[in-house]
Amino acid sequence: MTATRFFSDNAATVHPVVMEALAAANHVDTAYDGDALSQSLDAAFSDLFETTCEVVWIPTGTAANSIILAHFVRPWQGILCYEEAHIEVDECGAPTFYSGGAKLMPLPGRGAKIDTEALKARIAGIRRDVHQVQPAAVSITNATEYGLAWRADEVGAISEITKGAGMKLHMDGARFANAVAFLGCAPADVTWRAGVDALSFGFTKNGAMMAEAIVFFGDSGGAGVRELKKRGGHLLSKGRFVAAQIRAMLKDDLWLANARAANAGAAKLAAACGNRLMYPVEANELFVRLTADEAAQLRGAGFDFYDWGEGAARLVVSWDQDAEAVAPLAAAIGAL
Amino acid sequence: MTATRFFSDNAATVHPVVMEALAAANHVDTAYDGDALSQSLDAAFSDLFETTCEVVWIPTGTAANSIILAHFVRPWQGILCYEEAHIEVDECGAPTFYSGGAKLMPLPGRGAKIDTEALKARIAGIRRDVHQVQPAAVSITNATEYGLAWRADEVGAISEITKGAGMKLHMDGARFANAVAFLGCAPADVTWRAGVDALSFGFTKNGAMMAEAIVFFGDSGGAGVRELKKRGGHLLSKGRFVAAQIRAMLKDDLWLANARAANAGAAKLAAACGNRLMYPVEANELFVRLTADEAAQLRGAGFDFYDWGEGAARLVVSWDQDAEAVAPLAAAIGAL
Amino acid sequence: MTATRFFSDNAATVHPVVMEALAAANHVDTAYDGDALSQSLDAAFSDLFETTCEVVWIPTGTAANSIILAHFVRPWQGILCYEEAHIEVDECGAPTFYSGGAKLMPLPGRGAKIDTEALKARIAGIRRDVHQVQPAAVSITNATEYGLAWRADEVGAISEITKGAGMKLHMDGARFANAVAFLGCAPADVTWRAGVDALSFGFTKNGAMMAEAIVFFGDSGGAGVRELKKRGGHLLSKGRFVAAQIRAMLKDDLWLANARAANAGAAKLAAACGNRLMYPVEANELFVRLTADEAAQLRGAGFDFYDWGEGAARLVVSWDQDAEAVAPLAAAIGAL
Amino acid sequence: MTATRFFSDNAATVHPVVMEALAAANHVDTAYDGDALSQSLDAAFSDLFETTCEVVWIPTGTAANSIILAHFVRPWQGILCYEEAHIEVDECGAPTFYSGGAKLMPLPGRGAKIDTEALKARIAGIRRDVHQVQPAAVSITNATEYGLAWRADEVGAISEITKGAGMKLHMDGARFANAVAFLGCAPADVTWRAGVDALSFGFTKNGAMMAEAIVFFGDSGGAGVRELKKRGGHLLSKGRFVAAQIRAMLKDDLWLANARAANAGAAKLAAACGNRLMYPVEANELFVRLTADEAAQLRGAGFDFYDWGEGAARLVVSWDQDAEAVAPLAAAIGAL
Repeated sequence: MTATRFFSDNAATVHPVVMEALAAANHVDTAYDGDALSQSLDAAFSDLFETTCEVVWIPTGTAANSIILAHFVRPWQGILCYEEAHIEVDECGAPTFYSGGAKLMPLPGRGAKIDTEALKARIAGIRRDVHQVQPAAVSITNATEYGLAWRADEVGAISEITKGAGMKLHMDGARFANAVAFLGCAPADVTWRAGVDALSFGFTKNGAMMAEAIVFFGDSGGAGVRELKKRGGHLLSKGRFVAAQIRAMLKDDLWLANARAANAGAAKLAAACGNRLMYPVEANELFVRLTADEAAQLRGAGFDFYDWGEGAARLVVSWDQDAEAVAPLAAAIGAL
Repeated sequence: MTATRFFSDNAATVHPVVMEALAAANHVDTAYDGDALSQSLDAAFSDLFETTCEVVWIPTGTAANSIILAHFVRPWQGILCYEEAHIEVDECGAPTFYSGGAKLMPLPGRGAKIDTEALKARIAGIRRDVHQVQPAAVSITNATEYGLAWRADEVGAISEITKGAGMKLHMDGARFANAVAFLGCAPADVTWRAGVDALSFGFTKNGAMMAEAIVFFGDSGGAGVRELKKRGGHLLSKGRFVAAQIRAMLKDDLWLANARAANAGAAKLAAACGNRLMYPVEANELFVRLTADEAAQLRGAGFDFYDWGEGAARLVVSWDQDAEAVAPLAAAIGAL
Repeated sequence: MTATRFFSDNAATVHPVVMEALAAANHVDTAYDGDALSQSLDAAFSDLFETTCEVVWIPTGTAANSIILAHFVRPWQGILCYEEAHIEVDECGAPTFYSGGAKLMPLPGRGAKIDTEALKARIAGIRRDVHQVQPAAVSITNATEYGLAWRADEVGAISEITKGAGMKLHMDGARFANAVAFLGCAPADVTWRAGVDALSFGFTKNGAMMAEAIVFFGDSGGAGVRELKKRGGHLLSKGRFVAAQIRAMLKDDLWLANARAANAGAAKLAAACGNRLMYPVEANELFVRLTADEAAQLRGAGFDFYDWGEGAARLVVSWDQDAEAVAPLAAAIGAL
Repeated sequence: MTATRFFSDNAATVHPVVMEALAAANHVDTAYDGDALSQSLDAAFSDLFETTCEVVWIPTGTAANSIILAHFVRPWQGILCYEEAHIEVDECGAPTFYSGGAKLMPLPGRGAKIDTEALKARIAGIRRDVHQVQPAAVSITNATEYGLAWRADEVGAISEITKGAGMKLHMDGARFANAVAFLGCAPADVTWRAGVDALSFGFTKNGAMMAEAIVFFGDSGGAGVRELKKRGGHLLSKGRFVAAQIRAMLKDDLWLANARAANAGAAKLAAACGNRLMYPVEANELFVRLTADEAAQLRGAGFDFYDWGEGAARLVVSWDQDAEAVAPLAAAIGAL
């Protein structure tokens, strides 16, 4: 069935190593996040990112994004983001809920990357008074909602504008692993070294069961974060089972290996799609031109994927689908 | 270590059958709560409760309580509860957060059971105007925060007052299994048959990993509930793994067997505590008089538990601690 | 000074009749909104609008808009509006605050009128799931933020789409009087007869001191509205002084006379502006092309107004500025 | 009618000097709070309080209290107050609304003064973890809800505890003038000199129309306050009319003269009530034992007042009711 499922990496299986880690964590320990596994996260991520990190596990990406943003903005402030960002279009207003009312301020871009000129113009166009919502954070997604990887210098350009306006920079890293795998860079290069203050580091799509890491770089976290988490009902009593998933994903860079596998599958599919591609394929998502007839034909052959407006489709390759697993779909697309 | 840990059932292990269910769920399926396991919950609980149920899985009890209460009250309304109810003292204000500002209105009682006369008096004392917060829901906890089980007629007495004032009745069932195991009744008897509109049915403390069921009886659920869940960041992408835990707990009444085991352990400990007991032991929690010296002595022997104010302690027996597992502590208390 | 102030009708004087009404209300009566004047509003507006109205006085338009919208949408829902609507760009997020988090969903248009095709397309483009915010209300402003009056059939076209999608229709009538004065229609024609569910009827800009009416047509108001008002801190203890202003404005159609005076002044200015006008002048606001030099020249002559981006300015004529009062500015513009 | 109305000072008339100030303010000026009158408030209150003050006018006391408290606490924190404080029982949850969810934490006391031992015990009893709401502010009312004046040393005792726990101290001064008139002290003595961080200084009950001052002492105000006000819909476009009321009340200490008149009337009534009094009369409110028959008898004679539970009544004397105006009621009570 992994050879036919391309609708989302949200539905992928859990990596066996993660399952083993859950079994290994099935012993008595302190409740909530006082256990040894939870307590080990700061150090583990500080190693990975080569800087001091404050890390909070959380079961979903929506909660991770929302808590970081709620920590960075006050209820009357705003969050600048790409107009089709996940936080803007797919989280039922969760960042507004967690922040107590902050406004998402959408911006245009290409391939889901905020256009820097549009960002500057938007900031410049806001009157500095109490009538207009003043933005206090910018959020970008890496890899983007259209499967592109932000380069370090691109992040830096956004960061420069962000910091120049006294705002915080958040990165939604639901597919951060795929971006890093594509870029071949150090995780630090496209995050704090480029000016990112906090990262939602996603593991669920990439082989975990329900585990994301809220990563604050330097001293950008602190008081209030854990209250937001508890108040949102996200402090799991047996929290060690979430921390265990994350530790398993970090061990021997499983997160990177899984992302590479998904990316490799996507690259193979991309080759088959040729000029059907609407965007370069830099992570594990493909957006392809496909007529309704062609889509029906592929579905008739058992392949499952989402339409993306008229005449287009989204194909997502998961960590458990390597080049071999995507071969049937690649062949079917080639034969259209 | 199970023979020494009595600080909370929050830290207990996960039952092997639940672990097996997680492994069995590790296949591809629809994302979020569209999978077969999630979809099966309504029917499973409708069977168990002998009436139509609408069921929503959720990873924590705090989120379960908050979503039910947010569904029942508007931001300017109130929630009547026992003054030491978990929602009042241990959830960082989560029900207020989820409801957009509802007021918790604490009431006295004995053994964490709301006093019915106090409830009536409180309702009667509220002026029906816009200046005073009007309560719209009552919340009770079964088993209570002091380990007592609400009998059907006691619930009915609360329900009569609640319904008479046009309010909804919520039951926090973090230890619902322990209460039912003690009462030996049908789950329906102390819930909807006695007037409960919705139940937070806890499984995490009782052998699951992170799995609670929001159970709406009849048509008390409906529009808005799933938005509250999504907006709170609780719609897990691989939701089948939460549903799987719940199905495993329901199968062959594992929830009841586990609760019986914990209750049996607690009963054995209770016998050893004799007149140290501050409340009858009807579930898996004991509140015992214990001097600071005695507490130190038990801790010196390796036992782990919480102080409960001065001169008292709370002992909690988990599903993985049967009569045999509590024997060392029973002996130690007996020898004080 | 009335001959030089064109920056906003927000700063206009209070009509002498309103001042007299305040003096006349300076006697003892019931507190809050239990007084005779407050109690008379439902009937007065029901007469004016030729249908049953539920009316709530409120000191500001921001609060009026916010309370109506908060009454119409739940926290997780959305409000469709023009992308430069006052509620979207000038209220510091107040509708989101009052509604507990509702999302403003901006739409393009011409002259601050929502484009009906864009409205349809936006609604059609929203997936009916819990991930995307579902809109529950549409808000239009009459006269618009660019000084245009919505005709009855235009409102009807918006209403048809709105009602077809199960939503409520709100009209921000900060300058409703000016629109009605221009259209020469019955107030009912561009409101409930055209499908409007509730109106923020502004009096402050038009000669009152701080008085707006929240007008619910038919049974669109009801439970919750007064709680929103009280909770927002808008239930004035000496409420009769707000109701008195509104009654004075309604008496002998003072609201209409004042709006006609402002419109007449604006029309005279418009004639002087000729092809500098960016929009037809249908109420009391003019948007005119003006170079920086020209603007400086006018300011040098004592005229006060706002720039409107580069090369443009906004001129607002108030109720206390008739054709004679605007003559100096008209002459100055003509002489540029 | 002033000789029969004793139900509330909320319904009192507006002082002629305030009416004149409104007339005098009826000229064109800048909108919102940019006008000269609004801009003059900081200096005027800094003079009155002999320290640097940041002052924000607001139309209601509920909004004043809510904005100050929302500025002092985060959504997940708490506000300690007397269990019958106005903010707890008479504001429809407004402080919770404005703060985004803060919890009011009621405390016992005598005469509506928080008991200091109870305050200490409550603070000491809170676990310093994320499960329990941590208080961040204390609110006291002066004069209290039972008409008592807080002495400087009493405020100091509360402040010491408050500051010792890292919290802010708010004073609800809906009847601050009456307290100061009774105490004969400098306004500074019972506010910042005794440790108060911010005061809701009420003028509406005391002769204004709708005007309260939010007074931040020292640097306790700052960023965010004006956004809360705007977002709540309290930034009136013709704000000069609120500022004008406050300036009129400050001029020649009208606020003090009015409070003295009300207090004198209350003292005269108090003498007539003798041992019916439930509390000392230190401001303009009396709480008196009165049987249902006696209450009916007084009402039959035309006097209007509120019952206060069974066998008791509340009588409030307003600024426009001096000793002469209360004579008929004093006589009637004496004759019972």
